[in-house]
Amino acid sequence: MSETAVTQQLAAWTVGMKFKDIPASVRAEGVRTFVNWLGCAVGGSDHETVDRALAVALLFTGPKRASVIGRKERLDELHAALINGISSHVLDYDDTHLKTIVHPAGPVASALLAVAEERGIRGKDFITALIAGVEVECRIANSVYPDHYDRGWHITGTAGVFGAAAAVGKLLKLNKQQMTWAFGLAATQSSGLREMFGTMTKSFHPGRAAQNGAMAAFLAKANYDSSERGIEAPRGFANVLSTKQDYNEILGKLGEVWEAGLNTYKPYACGIVIHPTIDGCQQLKEKLGSRVKQIKSVELTTHPLVLELTGKRTPRTGLEGKFSVYHSAATALLRGDGSPTAFTDEAVRNKAIIALRDKVNAKADASVHEDAVHITVTFEDGAVEKLHVEHAIGSLHKPLSDEAITEKFTRQSDPILGEKATRKLIDTAWKVADLGDVGIVARASRKK
Amino acid sequence: MSETAVTQQLAAWTVGMKFKDIPASVRAEGVRTFVNWLGCAVGGSDHETVDRALAVALLFTGPKRASVIGRKERLDELHAALINGISSHVLDYDDTHLKTIVHPAGPVASALLAVAEERGIRGKDFITALIAGVEVECRIANSVYPDHYDRGWHITGTAGVFGAAAAVGKLLKLNKQQMTWAFGLAATQSSGLREMFGTMTKSFHPGRAAQNGAMAAFLAKANYDSSERGIEAPRGFANVLSTKQDYNEILGKLGEVWEAGLNTYKPYACGIVIHPTIDGCQQLKEKLGSRVKQIKSVELTTHPLVLELTGKRTPRTGLEGKFSVYHSAATALLRGDGSPTAFTDEAVRNKAIIALRDKVNAKADASVHEDAVHITVTFEDGAVEKLHVEHAIGSLHKPLSDEAITEKFTRQSDPILGEKATRKLIDTAWKVADLGDVGIVARASRKK
Repeated sequence: MSETAVTQQLAAWTVGMKFKDIPASVRAEGVRTFVNWLGCAVGGSDHETVDRALAVALLFTGPKRASVIGRKERLDELHAALINGISSHVLDYDDTHLKTIVHPAGPVASALLAVAEERGIRGKDFITALIAGVEVECRIANSVYPDHYDRGWHITGTAGVFGAAAAVGKLLKLNKQQMTWAFGLAATQSSGLREMFGTMTKSFHPGRAAQNGAMAAFLAKANYDSSERGIEAPRGFANVLSTKQDYNEILGKLGEVWEAGLNTYKPYACGIVIHPTIDGCQQLKEKLGSRVKQIKSVELTTHPLVLELTGKRTPRTGLEGKFSVYHSAATALLRGDGSPTAFTDEAVRNKAIIALRDKVNAKADASVHEDAVHITVTFEDGAVEKLHVEHAIGSLHKPLSDEAITEKFTRQSDPILGEKATRKLIDTAWKVADLGDVGIVARASRKK
Repeated sequence: MSETAVTQQLAAWTVGMKFKDIPASVRAEGVRTFVNWLGCAVGGSDHETVDRALAVALLFTGPKRASVIGRKERLDELHAALINGISSHVLDYDDTHLKTIVHPAGPVASALLAVAEERGIRGKDFITALIAGVEVECRIANSVYPDHYDRGWHITGTAGVFGAAAAVGKLLKLNKQQMTWAFGLAATQSSGLREMFGTMTKSFHPGRAAQNGAMAAFLAKANYDSSERGIEAPRGFANVLSTKQDYNEILGKLGEVWEAGLNTYKPYACGIVIHPTIDGCQQLKEKLGSRVKQIKSVELTTHPLVLELTGKRTPRTGLEGKFSVYHSAATALLRGDGSPTAFTDEAVRNKAIIALRDKVNAKADASVHEDAVHITVTFEDGAVEKLHVEHAIGSLHKPLSDEAITEKFTRQSDPILGEKATRKLIDTAWKVADLGDVGIVARASRKK
């Protein structure tokens, strides 16, 4: 595929695509993406990471036109995009585009809902913009993955800023020229390092991508110009931030094959690569009952990324626990838990969990697929129990049902918004594409 | 030098350094850096690039505690940092750390003055923070230059965000732990692509670096945590954004050898690498008089970077003219001009300039130093005139005097603030280190 005009062609498609062009199944996935994101943003909203970022946002916020999900505060649209992006990702419980490990909704939906809230946006236009944003984000990610990620970039931030620019740009009705500039402004703000994993700065990435992408769209709308080749130029995004550049991933079958239809939703509140292990350990807990106490050792055979990303032997905080396959396995075996309560400071300091964690070993094997794991449990008496997870719950082969997404939402939201408000919010969220004004979802997500 | 604790050691130095530790010559250079930056920010403040960015900033600004230099508006500190950073760089007339081609003041001073304005900051503390910021920025730039720049990063943006974080962090009295986090938050926001040169997005880089670095400092102050190895970790700034990592450039002789003492100030409003050519062509204009009209061809022999960065044969806008060594040579030969008026849309479309521009040729020669040029002019009658510029005006060998900086300031500010207000502003700016409250400089820089 020619390298010419990648940015311009992508901008033209983004500007031109309409609700009626989107297959029903992709529209439905867009709604699932939105509902899952909203539940996660409510669930993360009382985390101290959000408290600290919000304290700063309140110092600088402009006119308060946008709701902070799950809280009482309102902020200007850009700051709301930042905070809601942090909330939705802080528990590592959101969504995943499995081909790239992008978490698509954080940058896109956080920017979009904040900007839409007081603009009287119809549900159809909202979902169209959301799907455009996710499509742009995931296709750009495809074009540079895995080299870009391997180099150390947190792809949810780096690709996410383009998605936010596309979605907000569509809401603002940018023309093709302006959308091209918005992508240039996104390219030049593309950032986020994997070194930040395990700290509060990880969830800053989707938040900042949402805020920066929205800013890119507003600047472009004001005719603040930029390169017209932000993605493909020799010193543009793809060449500077990656050794791989496959522009066919961006432009090939655009509007025919939909990456936005391939989103998945996490059943567990941690790095996606640990999910098969938790799935398997939960199954083993059910099967073993009290024999869990006689475990001598646990051997995991996993995809190499599992150890690279989640090889922390001795996590000190709940956040670090999300990057420890050892902690995750132990907690799932002892408590059957993979939800946010499995990754609290209490959990990583629990003596029984630590004792079992130290009996877990993991071995990388490139022949094991990313959503699979082999688990061998050896008992004090020499007995052995084996289990093979071929596809973890929540993967494309075993997707979360709408009911499971609702249940996940409910579990996160009930303690924060209360049962009645949660029920109402969930019902409204599932109907988002039919609303005359999506602002009611944003307002319903606030704490009274 | 060991790779351990680079970020932490740099943070410790930044937190601990005091006004009395800074040699008098470096303090004086800090004041020159500030005065030159302020004049450039006034000079650029009525550019349409600033108009467009300001229109967006006004939609989102929080409490108006900070002046927009050269304009009537005020904004919150973060938005003022953005706009003033754009103003100070939009004419490509600011300052240069020659070892790295970083333009140090844009990110640092734009963040610092905006945050200082209403905080009752003493001049001594202000200049100390400014020098800390420039030192951090230039040392980090040294550690990855030239590989990082060659890869396509606009180093003023990528290193500048650290400088802004250091300067504002010092103003906010961050402790060592918080300063380390601020550097982590800066690292993860480090961005800005060279592809944007010649568009409005180039000057967005120092503006956004100022804003993002300030935000990093405010977040760290609120104990929003981050990596403690943002610079040197395997997936931190230096490894992800560069093939070269020389940490001795960051930590070696810190507080003894001062990069902040090596700043230079542009006599011409364009890319620094064109300066020797303009200097030489101005000299030739003086010498040749009306014979300029008989020029048949002009041959330039320059450092290779000149053609790489400023090889645009047919610039279409004033901004693009700044990246055309051909346009610059022609304008200097015809008009003796290298100031902002040499790089207007009118100038690049002027027929006489275009005609002469098309007679200019340039040849790269790696043996020619970056601040030198060989010029050979051939006339219609076969006569030849040669000139060699060994060190351009404004380089470290021929620094601009304080008087020249004042004159440069005056020329930029008179048409915008008027002569009386300009005079007062310049006098106050030179005294910045002695002020009891630097807010008076910021307020004096606004249009009444």
